[in-house]
Order: sequence, then C-alpha cells, then structure tokens
Amino acid sequence: MINSCGECEYCRRGDEQYCAKGATMTYNGIDPVDGTITQGGYSQAIVVTEDFVVRVPENLAFDKAAPLLCAGVSLYSPLRHWQAGPGKKVAIVGLGGLGHMGVKIAAALGAEVTVLSQTTSKKEDSLRFGATAHYATADPQTFTQLANSFDLIVNTVSAKIDMGAFLSLLKVDGTLVNVGAPAEPLEVPAFALIPSRRSWAGSSIGSIRETQEMLDFCAEHAIASETEVISADDINDAYERILKSDVRYRFVIDAATI
Amino acid sequence: MINSCGECEYCRRGDEQYCAKGATMTYNGIDPVDGTITQGGYSQAIVVTEDFVVRVPENLAFDKAAPLLCAGVSLYSPLRHWQAGPGKKVAIVGLGGLGHMGVKIAAALGAEVTVLSQTTSKKEDSLRFGATAHYATADPQTFTQLANSFDLIVNTVSAKIDMGAFLSLLKVDGTLVNVGAPAEPLEVPAFALIPSRRSWAGSSIGSIRETQEMLDFCAEHAIASETEVISADDINDAYERILKSDVRYRFVIDAATI
Repeated sequence: MINSCGECEYCRRGDEQYCAKGATMTYNGIDPVDGTITQGGYSQAIVVTEDFVVRVPENLAFDKAAPLLCAGVSLYSPLRHWQAGPGKKVAIVGLGGLGHMGVKIAAALGAEVTVLSQTTSKKEDSLRFGATAHYATADPQTFTQLANSFDLIVNTVSAKIDMGAFLSLLKVDGTLVNVGAPAEPLEVPAFALIPSRRSWAGSSIGSIRETQEMLDFCAEHAIASETEVISADDINDAYERILKSDVRYRFVIDAATI
Repeated sequence: MINSCGECEYCRRGDEQYCAKGATMTYNGIDPVDGTITQGGYSQAIVVTEDFVVRVPENLAFDKAAPLLCAGVSLYSPLRHWQAGPGKKVAIVGLGGLGHMGVKIAAALGAEVTVLSQTTSKKEDSLRFGATAHYATADPQTFTQLANSFDLIVNTVSAKIDMGAFLSLLKVDGTLVNVGAPAEPLEVPAFALIPSRRSWAGSSIGSIRETQEMLDFCAEHAIASETEVISADDINDAYERILKSDVRYRFVIDAATI
C-alpha cells in the first residue's frame, strides 16, 4: 500500500492496512490525491507518501528484500498478532512464496514449526528453512496423526481446501488464519469450531510499522526470501513457470532492465 | 456435563467443557465410571461427581434458574471470553431460548446490545431484555446500515445463515461466535475475514467455574430466563409448540410431576 486516510480509528492506531476508507493499494488502486489508477512498483521511480516508505537494512540485498515487502509482512503480521513464539506449535499450510517466509519467520520467532504441504517433495526445503516437521496433506493419516496439535495454523493456499480437516488439527482455543484468499466461499462445518472453541480468521498484509519491524527482524536473523532474479524480458516465461509452480520461491524482476 | 477426565491440560486449567478425552454429557454420554449411557436430568434424582454440582443462589427461583444451566452459561461463557462489556458493541443473532439470555447477560455486563432477528416482531422484548436496538435481518438494508459496526456477534441460530453478510457487520478485529450449531457446513467467503482481520469462532457451554459465576451474576443482576412451566403430561404439546417457535422463551418441566 502507498497511502491511507490517516484519520480513522485504524489508521490512528497504526493499522493502516485496515483503513476504514480503504488503504490505497500499490496496484490498481484509486489515488485519493488525483483520482488516477495506481500503476504499481514495476518501474524505476514511484511517488509515495513519506509515511509509507520503509528503510531496507544495509545487510539485506535488494533482491532478497523485495518479496519481504509483501510475502514477508503478510506472514510476519499474523504470526506476531497471534503470538507465535517459544512454546507455541505453528503449522504453515503451503510452501510457496508466502509459506516459505512463514516457516522462516515463525522459526526465528522461536515457535515449533510444521509444514503441511500436498506432498513431501519439498521436505528438505522445509527443514532447511527452520521447520522441525513436514507432512503431506494428500495422506489422510496426516490428519489423524496431527489432530488437536497446533496453537496456530497459517493457511497460505488460495485454493479450496477441506477446512473441517485443517481446523481439526487445532488445539482448544487455536486459530487458523487465512492469508491465502480463495475466490470461492469455503465450506466450513461449525462443528469444527464449537467443541474446541477454535477460530478461523483472516489477515491482510501488515501495517507500515510492522513492515519496518519485519525488515529489521529479517536482517537481524539473516532471513530473506529465496529468489530467482529475472530481467524484464523474461516476464512472460516466468509467468508460465509460476502457473506450473516452477519457482522456488519468488521471481524478482531487476528494475534496471525495465 | 456431569464429569470430565480431570487430568488433561484443559481440565487442569478449568475448561472441563473442552476436556481432551471429552466431557461426559448429561444426556446420551458414556459414563466413564460404569460405561452406561447417561440418561439426562429429567428425573427426580441424578448422580453427579461433586465437582460438577453448582449452587443455585437463594433469590433465583428453580424454574427461572434451570435454563441458565445450559442457555445461560452457553452465552455467558463466550460473552466473557470475548470481553463483552462497557464500550463494546455486541449483536445477538436470534432471539430464542439462547438469544434472549445473551441479550440480558451482555446488557448486564455493560455492553451496547443490538438484536438481529428475522423480523421486528420481538422488538419490544429485545428492548425489555436490555438491548438498545433491534433490526430485521430479512431487510437487506440492515446489512448496509450496520456494516463494520460490532466488536462481537454471537450467533444463536442453528440454521444456515448468510455468513458473508453477517461477518460484514464486524469491525476490524471483530469476532462472530457460533453457539448455534447448524448440521450442515456453512459457506464462508475468506474475503469476509481477510480485509478486516475478522474471526469466526465457536463456543460450547462453559466451565463449571463459569456456570457458578454466571448463576451468581444472574442473581446479583436479577436476571433469569423467561419461562413457561409445564407438567410432564404437557411434554408432547410443548414439543409441537417448540417446532412452531411458539415459546417465549423456554419451557421448564416441573420435575415433581414426572
């Protein structure tokens, strides 16, 4: 986001991402100053209100830092809000651009991290990123074995998943947070929530304060996104590869080639 | 409930209703002592572990207190857990046996209470029970008018409702709690949760500590269930009337007539 009203109760308490009038998104948003459509950050220069500028710590390379400004903070914010940390068991659903940052950040926060991925093909990566376990969700036994296990589950998958099954993995008072945003409604049995006072929540990016905090946290813990840098000419190929899930874990376009 | 394991983390912290081995329900539960099926409380005597006995305050009549032990605590527990009180805007969905207790308790806790009922036919009752507003959910304007209004919504309805519409009534960080338990899964758009960090949760009865606390609270605030006392001979007629929603708000069977 590049702006917000600055006056509503959410902006005033530092939650600009939940601005009552709607924060101005970097892409395809309506600029409240001149009414034009925002054109995004794939450019050599961009005009942003100074309150929405963050400082990239010196020991974070630009290409490693770039995806942190979306994927990084989108995971950092719910992990902090729902208090991932020592003594907490956290599961990350999906090991993609969002999920791999979730694993790294949750582990650095001191939580015990499990990855729930469709298969075990990325198990080595999970462990390398800081997880202590990796389970295949295609295997129904995973759900029996891990029933009532987690304090917090962050779901990064934007497709329909079996919500009843995933919610059953939460302890009493546990929360499953969606940062993945499926276009269709999900079918959720109330009985997956009621008998264990579980919650299903959603979270959207993070505040500017959290974004700066996350960058500093990542620099301090030597965490960054796994990236493959491409030039502007490779965008179409990269897009095709994204559709085939053939990216580990984020493409970064070198703006010097634009 | 009439028993629980007493040893799991939830029992030890006083959340027996969420016992990891499952609390023993008054009706149709399996008694862990002798393996028999529990027969319920419609009787002149019942055997219960002493830790599961509560004291009815002297100024609460038995017939007014009886429904508090289920409907009362089922609303008291989530209202306390999600901190209904002064400065909080609370909505109760459905004004039946559960809902009318929710209105009375939330108002006595100091919250500003709105009733969301299908029609306005029970508006006078809502106001009498302590609500400051009553809206018809059959009117689509209700959802426009009350968008982003509530800190907490307690849904007492056990039928399918339009979850996206009801969730849109929550403020940022608001929670909708189901105590009503629809048999079928509900369709919930993740987009109703994500942009405002809302939560959808469930809650089941309450602990024994909360049950005693609720009885004392009701006695102190002169709150009780609205009841119609019937004799055992009237049970079949009463059941038919319940199906027609013709009860305001709970039938109580006089056990002396059993």
